[in-house]
Amino acid sequence: MTQSPVSTDLALGRRAMALLDQLAQYSDEPSCLTRLYLSKAHRRAAEATLGFMQNAGLDSHIDPLGSVVGRLDGANPDAPALLIGSHIDTVVDAGRYDGTLGVVLGIVTIEALRQQGVVPACPIEIVAFGDEENARFPTNLSTSAALSGRYDPAWLDGIDQDGITLRDALAAFGGDPSRIGTIARDRARYRGYLEVHIEQGPQLEAAGFAVGIVSAISGISRARAAVTGEAGHAGTVPMPMRRDALAAAAEMIVAVERTGAIRLDTVATVGATQVRPGAINVIPARVDFTLDARSPDDVVRHAMVRDIMTECEAIAQKRGVGLAIEPFMDSPATPMDSALIAVFEHTLRSLGISPMSVASGAGHDAVAMAGLCPSAMLFVRCKGGISHNPAESITVEDADIAARVLIESVKKLVT
Amino acid sequence: MTQSPVSTDLALGRRAMALLDQLAQYSDEPSCLTRLYLSKAHRRAAEATLGFMQNAGLDSHIDPLGSVVGRLDGANPDAPALLIGSHIDTVVDAGRYDGTLGVVLGIVTIEALRQQGVVPACPIEIVAFGDEENARFPTNLSTSAALSGRYDPAWLDGIDQDGITLRDALAAFGGDPSRIGTIARDRARYRGYLEVHIEQGPQLEAAGFAVGIVSAISGISRARAAVTGEAGHAGTVPMPMRRDALAAAAEMIVAVERTGAIRLDTVATVGATQVRPGAINVIPARVDFTLDARSPDDVVRHAMVRDIMTECEAIAQKRGVGLAIEPFMDSPATPMDSALIAVFEHTLRSLGISPMSVASGAGHDAVAMAGLCPSAMLFVRCKGGISHNPAESITVEDADIAARVLIESVKKLVT
Repeated sequence: MTQSPVSTDLALGRRAMALLDQLAQYSDEPSCLTRLYLSKAHRRAAEATLGFMQNAGLDSHIDPLGSVVGRLDGANPDAPALLIGSHIDTVVDAGRYDGTLGVVLGIVTIEALRQQGVVPACPIEIVAFGDEENARFPTNLSTSAALSGRYDPAWLDGIDQDGITLRDALAAFGGDPSRIGTIARDRARYRGYLEVHIEQGPQLEAAGFAVGIVSAISGISRARAAVTGEAGHAGTVPMPMRRDALAAAAEMIVAVERTGAIRLDTVATVGATQVRPGAINVIPARVDFTLDARSPDDVVRHAMVRDIMTECEAIAQKRGVGLAIEPFMDSPATPMDSALIAVFEHTLRSLGISPMSVASGAGHDAVAMAGLCPSAMLFVRCKGGISHNPAESITVEDADIAARVLIESVKKLVT
Repeated sequence: MTQSPVSTDLALGRRAMALLDQLAQYSDEPSCLTRLYLSKAHRRAAEATLGFMQNAGLDSHIDPLGSVVGRLDGANPDAPALLIGSHIDTVVDAGRYDGTLGVVLGIVTIEALRQQGVVPACPIEIVAFGDEENARFPTNLSTSAALSGRYDPAWLDGIDQDGITLRDALAAFGGDPSRIGTIARDRARYRGYLEVHIEQGPQLEAAGFAVGIVSAISGISRARAAVTGEAGHAGTVPMPMRRDALAAAAEMIVAVERTGAIRLDTVATVGATQVRPGAINVIPARVDFTLDARSPDDVVRHAMVRDIMTECEAIAQKRGVGLAIEPFMDSPATPMDSALIAVFEHTLRSLGISPMSVASGAGHDAVAMAGLCPSAMLFVRCKGGISHNPAESITVEDADIAARVLIESVKKLVT
């Protein structure tokens, strides 16, 4: 089953690509795209985004935390508003689509509504958040969390790798920590949040779909594990007398992979290991490894993590090695709003496109926004599932489809 | 079955321990025992050893490569001589027994022969080699290799971590590269080499034996393996679509351990791994790991390595990851001389001790000496099998037994 393109002139896709190309110019590094939260490149990209919003006829400003906000009042400025957004910060050596695509498609949507003479019944706000990638400060989704009044002032004391506090960086950017409270929205005045984002995974490409509707954003469990065996001479300790921390950890890593693959939509990853002493002729005494386990269903995730821990403990016991597992993150899943999902599905069908449902294994601003109002996400196919990389790529055809789906969905919601 | 002590006054063991304690004073570092080849501490330890040899009545000198040599001519100075030795260099932060025990027991043997009024029928040479640990220069057993005329002059160009060449270090030590050729012995004039060494493994302790006779010194295969998969977001790439280099390498590491345990007296170790990129939220793209595989039988070792490679290749193919295995060492096993082994066995039985045969998984100067003359080794139990560590430990009782076995064996050979 595949989705068919719905446009032949691709005007919306081309417009989105043109705006993405313009924003890709703003980088903190000349040789690649790096746009960290509150950097000079972020400021320039925020000003350019402000310009796009103003040109689209939005009442726009850069908020005290650096997010760019543009508002169209519509027929009834007091009706609950629809939010559309994503982020314009990037990782180091990034691609140009992650985050920025969702901001640009929000602007393209406003442009299309104007062009089509549509006057929305309620206000629409486009937001370009600035702190989604967690690439500079130890914060996570701080700019979107501020909209639901969940900004923790302690975040301002977080420092980047140069020792600069978020507070000082915000002042240098032109922000205003004393006004963060003014960003918090009255939830009675918001009806929903829509975010378009590249998938950052290979599922849509593998299934032959241009876009997919996010069912939920997975919850994440993280832990550090330490396996302690006994160092020894690689030549002189017979195999049955060893307590090899690496062989034990290897068996655990295979168990993590196997356990992560048993249930629907779960993933479990060991991404980093450290072996000590780490010499060719010494039996490893200690191995530390990381665990990252995700599921769109928290009950399923907790069961998976319990199974992983049980398996690892059994391996440790069988081998006579020590095992200490230290969980340090248990971030719940965020189900997307079923009514907004239904709007996306209806739009897709009306455009002749089969709706495909995907769970998001990555976190997004929609996690924080779901704390303010009903939220939903549309994923766009990206080449090879690659993101956080200059090789990140989408087609103009897919951008065009995503734009049409967003525009038609917004029209269903605001007219 | 256990071995019984053969002495109650422990005079020989105490004497050995006293000499070991004296030599342990000579260290390049104040807080621990480090005595690298040609260092100042090595020079001081060599001079102290020279003094012990001279006091024992040996005609002694420090040779052009820094080895200390003491000779007792015996009744017939032209008869083929018996060599006894080991090394006095150490690893960084070492124990006091590895190597030095064999040198000290050679000296104690000469002292005992004198005390007992034994005049050997042939010459006896005690040698304290200086370059066994491979801890400073890229050489391996260079000082003992010189005795069989196998010193490669290119070794003089090897550099230590400070960029000092072996040639310059030798000059600073007081050695003489131009006279290395004079160290080479005429093999017709040597009848055998005996080396006592701590086991550096746990087999004697586990079996309850104070000493063991080495059957062979294992051959060693070494290789570097690189597993190449595909990096990806730990949240967004479904388990069935991954090519996780670490999960693949983990399965290989388990296979290395399993394959190393199938055959008699073999060991196989993965001691070091490197995971890239090595982040908690990124599926590993590449894992490099080391392989060290040993057996006292080269045919067995080669079969083991073939099996390991076949298993790893099957795992790589099944998982769709790349695998490059680069072998870089294939060092043959060194069987010990059966006639000298028989002498050790006979001595042990005559002292009421059951002979236990052990393969040596670690390399020793006896590997190089076997290129000159028939060679044999006696292993001494060490606590927990620990070596290359300040916790290295033997008992005075075991040192005493080892001294008696060596003295009685030497008497069998030279009278």
